Amino acid sequence: MNQKTSIPKGTRDFGPVPMMRRNYLFDTIRSVFQLYGYMPIETPAMETLETLMGKYGEEGDKLIFKILNSGDFASGIKPEFFENLLRNPENSGQISKTMASQISEKALRYDLTVPFARFVVQHREEITFPFKRYQIQPVWRADRPQKNRYREFYQCDVDVIGSNSLLNEAELIKIIDEVFIRFGLNIVIKLNNRKILAGLAEVSGMGSNLTDFTVALDKLDKIGMELVKKEWSSKGFSNDSIDLIIPVIGNTGSNSDKLDRLRDILKNSGTGQKGLEELETLMKIISGFDLKCSVEIDLTLARGLNYYTGAIIEVKSLDVQMGSICGGGRYDDLTGIFGMPGVSGVGVSFGADRIYDVLEQTNGFTALTHTGTQILFLNFGPEESAVCMPLADQLRSAGISCELYPDSTKIKKQMQYADQNKIPVVIMIGETERNASQASVKYMSSGEQVNIAFSDLTNAIGKIF
Amino acid sequence: MNQKTSIPKGTRDFGPVPMMRRNYLFDTIRSVFQLYGYMPIETPAMETLETLMGKYGEEGDKLIFKILNSGDFASGIKPEFFENLLRNPENSGQISKTMASQISEKALRYDLTVPFARFVVQHREEITFPFKRYQIQPVWRADRPQKNRYREFYQCDVDVIGSNSLLNEAELIKIIDEVFIRFGLNIVIKLNNRKILAGLAEVSGMGSNLTDFTVALDKLDKIGMELVKKEWSSKGFSNDSIDLIIPVIGNTGSNSDKLDRLRDILKNSGTGQKGLEELETLMKIISGFDLKCSVEIDLTLARGLNYYTGAIIEVKSLDVQMGSICGGGRYDDLTGIFGMPGVSGVGVSFGADRIYDVLEQTNGFTALTHTGTQILFLNFGPEESAVCMPLADQLRSAGISCELYPDSTKIKKQMQYADQNKIPVVIMIGETERNASQASVKYMSSGEQVNIAFSDLTNAIGKIF
Repeated sequence: MNQKTSIPKGTRDFGPVPMMRRNYLFDTIRSVFQLYGYMPIETPAMETLETLMGKYGEEGDKLIFKILNSGDFASGIKPEFFENLLRNPENSGQISKTMASQISEKALRYDLTVPFARFVVQHREEITFPFKRYQIQPVWRADRPQKNRYREFYQCDVDVIGSNSLLNEAELIKIIDEVFIRFGLNIVIKLNNRKILAGLAEVSGMGSNLTDFTVALDKLDKIGMELVKKEWSSKGFSNDSIDLIIPVIGNTGSNSDKLDRLRDILKNSGTGQKGLEELETLMKIISGFDLKCSVEIDLTLARGLNYYTGAIIEVKSLDVQMGSICGGGRYDDLTGIFGMPGVSGVGVSFGADRIYDVLEQTNGFTALTHTGTQILFLNFGPEESAVCMPLADQLRSAGISCELYPDSTKIKKQMQYADQNKIPVVIMIGETERNASQASVKYMSSGEQVNIAFSDLTNAIGKIF
Repeated sequence: MNQKTSIPKGTRDFGPVPMMRRNYLFDTIRSVFQLYGYMPIETPAMETLETLMGKYGEEGDKLIFKILNSGDFASGIKPEFFENLLRNPENSGQISKTMASQISEKALRYDLTVPFARFVVQHREEITFPFKRYQIQPVWRADRPQKNRYREFYQCDVDVIGSNSLLNEAELIKIIDEVFIRFGLNIVIKLNNRKILAGLAEVSGMGSNLTDFTVALDKLDKIGMELVKKEWSSKGFSNDSIDLIIPVIGNTGSNSDKLDRLRDILKNSGTGQKGLEELETLMKIISGFDLKCSVEIDLTLARGLNYYTGAIIEVKSLDVQMGSICGGGRYDDLTGIFGMPGVSGVGVSFGADRIYDVLEQTNGFTALTHTGTQILFLNFGPEESAVCMPLADQLRSAGISCELYPDSTKIKKQMQYADQNKIPVVIMIGETERNASQASVKYMSSGEQVNIAFSDLTNAIGKIF
């Protein structure tokens, strides 16, 4: 059997170099989360269909990867489906939709938010609230694969649930700032508040259809204001309403100009006032922080997901033109769908793949070029190897990563191995060295070669790493 | 909508405490792998059905979780399947088997070995051989869930591919020893060689059916020698053959007794001789190591997987009665199925879940009880919080993990939070402390409470962690 090798479209293999970079990326994010007292959790890759379906809108539901029931799944299909399909093959799309639940009862998670809500409800008795958790795991979406969009990708979520305090929003902003400082990246954090959007919709007479209002607004970046206006019109919003809104949400003026405009237009909306007050309080708290990044109120920021009810947050790279690299917001009733209403939470999700791409484009990984192995002992044969092994052990005991080349092949080939794996130091112990109890140590970058007595080796090597 | 929350059977949620333990476990294993120069890779959760099917035997194939094609999968089903199913509903099991490939083209990986072989073949041009890689990722199997057996579990694989040298086997034994030293666990490493088993089968006239010979032998632990004999008989092996084998493979005598018995019985089998020579060489190399664990030749060790061709390795806990907690062996042609023949490799896989269970039963996690947060600042209101936040920042800059309680609720509730999350130090800054620029610091284990000036705080706290 001679197979062609491939992986499913939209998925990726990660070799040693990207893995080291990804590990650095995740470790950096994780260490900041931990510094702020967030605790790790993990949930299964598979959730029940019941948990996932209906949480991401109709479009989202279609992108959920369903798992075929094990064993004799076909016995679960009702005969009328076959009959229907045989009679009306053109209806197979509709039939597939209904049939799926008869042959599948679980699916791969689509994000970390819904599994987190399910986790909180299921473990409510064991959890001490406020519950500060982070979760770094892959998610799967049957999106059309395209540049920078994958069917398997990691999310790095950090949330606090069970506290209404705006200090949580402020803390998340600090965490974002700290993460990107560590990455050496320049960013702007954009802030808005769903209640402000609701207020704006309300005062302009679009309030009865907040979803259409925000869904269109959310596309602003992609389609531009003219098309957003068009979409609003098509949803029945009047030109007067639209003309009232546009100058307010436009990105002109400073943060306080924007707050001033809002104070004026929202004076007759209770919800709007509440949102404005939240945004003002949040701005006041973070004004006490020594942030490196800039924070910008962006009243066009909508974020598509309907579960947000308060602050919404999005991060843009200033180094590289790209979609948002981190985002989130407050949700007042995420656990409500699982029967635990009235628990407020707020969280953000770091887009690992996009941050990776930004770091790659800004040479943010330059410090991470070697494979991890620090020393290669060349192999001159069994007797020399027997001498190398305890020396390698001593180095490992000192925390130095080393290898003995496993085969006593040509030295040139062994040196190539060191070179290609970017191993910085090569140790040669041939017959002469063995007899003299000395190692010949070669520093690959300079080409310098020195003899070091076996008894001094760990000490001498330890000094250079 | 009020849903009952549950997760698919055989899967698990991990809260903060098990997560910290699992992270400790994976980090320990990973750091040993890296110390020996192994490099990380990751492959996608999903592989094509073509990559996975037919690699794990008929039983294994049944346990592979298949992913339903996205969108209109039903249009891919040939009408004859429906007709057949409608006519013969009792055949649905058979029909399911064939229909699966029409509605599914990818599946969740079943282990890390086959994806690794696929990776090596697919990336052969980029890889420098010998390729030393490790991979720590979950795998999925539709096994019947039972105690200590899950449908989603992690494997920690370490392999070197592209080298025949027995130094690789020896190195893996050192790695195993080192990992379990770090865990503080007592183990025995059991060794055998597939060529020895082939030789034994050959000289006793069972050679034509090595698979049946090893499959039965592999069950010895579970079913005992009498039933193994019975299974051999049923496969057509003569009683004479069986009587010849039993005393040789029996676990009596020392390692050298066993080697002596083999030398005698295998003298007429070329394959057997080769296996014996490999085992002797390996034992000689590791006799030069300063291993903490014992290494035992176990001629009844078979390991079920057919791709092993040389050394086979299994690790048993001496602290807790349990199946093997680590195992592996040499395979001479794993990549052959993907069109790259003749590449020899050897590797072992650490069973993270079982090792976790052993550590739990031996109190191996006692050092890891707190959640990670070291300091909790109590919240006495907005003005006090504003003072706490820069102090918390200073501590974080010194690498100390701290939180400010987000709500200014009752102090009792806040103290309970510290208690339940096992946070060792609580800092109180109320109005008095704020005015005096002093923090009241409480050590939770002793109950001791001291006042420390704001300006000394980081220094004083830094000393206790």
